[in-house]
Amino acid sequence: MANVVDVLNKKIKETKAPIVVGLDPVLGEIPDCYKEKYSNMENKFEAIANILFDFNKDIIDVACKLVPAVKPQIAFYEMYGSWGMIAFEKTVKYAKEKGLIVIGDAKRNDIGNTAAAYAKAFLGKVDVGSGVEVPSYDVDFLTVSPYLGSDSLDPFISECEKNGKGVFILVKTSNPKSGDIQDKVDENGNKIYENIATYIEKESEKFETETGYSPIGAVVGATYPEQSIGLRKIMKKNIFLVPGYGAQGASASDICGNFNEDGLGAIVNSSRGIIFAYKKVCDKAVCTKEQYMESVEKAIDSMKTEILNALAQKGINY
Amino acid sequence: MANVVDVLNKKIKETKAPIVVGLDPVLGEIPDCYKEKYSNMENKFEAIANILFDFNKDIIDVACKLVPAVKPQIAFYEMYGSWGMIAFEKTVKYAKEKGLIVIGDAKRNDIGNTAAAYAKAFLGKVDVGSGVEVPSYDVDFLTVSPYLGSDSLDPFISECEKNGKGVFILVKTSNPKSGDIQDKVDENGNKIYENIATYIEKESEKFETETGYSPIGAVVGATYPEQSIGLRKIMKKNIFLVPGYGAQGASASDICGNFNEDGLGAIVNSSRGIIFAYKKVCDKAVCTKEQYMESVEKAIDSMKTEILNALAQKGINY
Repeated sequence: MANVVDVLNKKIKETKAPIVVGLDPVLGEIPDCYKEKYSNMENKFEAIANILFDFNKDIIDVACKLVPAVKPQIAFYEMYGSWGMIAFEKTVKYAKEKGLIVIGDAKRNDIGNTAAAYAKAFLGKVDVGSGVEVPSYDVDFLTVSPYLGSDSLDPFISECEKNGKGVFILVKTSNPKSGDIQDKVDENGNKIYENIATYIEKESEKFETETGYSPIGAVVGATYPEQSIGLRKIMKKNIFLVPGYGAQGASASDICGNFNEDGLGAIVNSSRGIIFAYKKVCDKAVCTKEQYMESVEKAIDSMKTEILNALAQKGINY
Repeated sequence: MANVVDVLNKKIKETKAPIVVGLDPVLGEIPDCYKEKYSNMENKFEAIANILFDFNKDIIDVACKLVPAVKPQIAFYEMYGSWGMIAFEKTVKYAKEKGLIVIGDAKRNDIGNTAAAYAKAFLGKVDVGSGVEVPSYDVDFLTVSPYLGSDSLDPFISECEKNGKGVFILVKTSNPKSGDIQDKVDENGNKIYENIATYIEKESEKFETETGYSPIGAVVGATYPEQSIGLRKIMKKNIFLVPGYGAQGASASDICGNFNEDGLGAIVNSSRGIIFAYKKVCDKAVCTKEQYMESVEKAIDSMKTEILNALAQKGINY
């Protein structure tokens, strides 16, 4: 079965942009021009859902011409309850209509039939009664957390097999204290995050794809460049979803070790650095939608140039 | 500030039931009598949201007289998108109106401002613009996952401090493969789950409560009774949320080690064993609402008797 990992790789080559735009719409940082239309709405959560979607729509309209994928961070939608989830659903749908790969950043997990419920909700189909199953969120990739163990990950991998979808499993995250659990060295001399990497590599044997890459990817923070190089050696044909670029402090040269020589194997996320880049040129009270969209385009272009230059220095060209 | 952990302890003593009823409404297992009213509804997700809430409402009406708390598992709502989240919101609200403590079982986590977004959504207030903040889900306790490290947990603990709420951090979960990460022995000879327990114990110093118990609790599976005893020694004044009883195979005697001598320190979850107990007496096609509610009451009563007897044998009485 065709898998989204092949579509992602094809799009990375086409756009020459191993970049995913994080759709983390923090209300307080959205320009006022997106809010005016809804300022008299009585239900604040309903108003915010509209604001978040309108804001995302403009980002998507710019991003779909320049990058292969977007990554809505579900927390920023879920925080506004069922209304927020409407904004999430509309965002996923619109991004897919515009040809973008959608990575649902939810870091979900649980055990048994609960893990299966999450897996079906995001990557498969859900039971609506009388033997009928329909897609729910229907994202292309989902981020998942491994703390509960391999049996908690099985339902997600099984949905990937069934539906040609993918996951990114947390391996080495970009935050300062990510080592609390992840860097512990076990009785065999392996770090916890290395064990997860080995697990991912092994599970990938189940998949055969056109580009040879596995749909079971790994979250590997840009802020730990040395660890990325080690992880690349364990997971040769897995995609790294790389957060931490820009706002969290990692530079373009930090992320080179995440890539393979074919220019594939990694997709670098930027959220605030792109969607709130407008702040460098105008105040949120006066920024127009045109100015806003221009700032998104410029930020993506400059990130792309930085990454392509850094990769070219390592002999990686598209 | 008054904390929900004191309310929980008071209710456990009052009801003599250290039990939480898991609200995991799997559509295919709900009796037909809850579905008939909505069978002609065109929007299937809307129909299901109504079914889930009506079903939960009857469980809550029984449970509120017998136990201190309910634990909706968010996956079973989230799987039906924004409609499902309406059912979740209505369930939380109704359970609280009925005087029940609500444990949101979401196993959420992330880093930085994303973790803060989840923490505010479930345990605090969310920004609706113009400096105004309002509660969103407003549960009493939330389950959270620790893989990302201590800085990912900070925002949740900070909301607990601010709002008198609590969390249950995954420590040793009930599933067969929970040991994949959790049981690894680190370079200091400590298991990963023991490190989390030590962290929880230390963070608890920030809290002073009436009953002396910390609102930073731990998820400790009933299926690992020996490990529970060890964890009880590390976390003396923390509440253990104990899954795995009944359907997952743990017995009443297995859960005794989770309790302190005062009869507090643990709350045992049962989901399927209570909410789908009706299957022992009638078929889902013919079960009436009265029969259903009676089955819930009987299942809770019998679980209560089993647990109280097992605890009494260890000299623990309410």
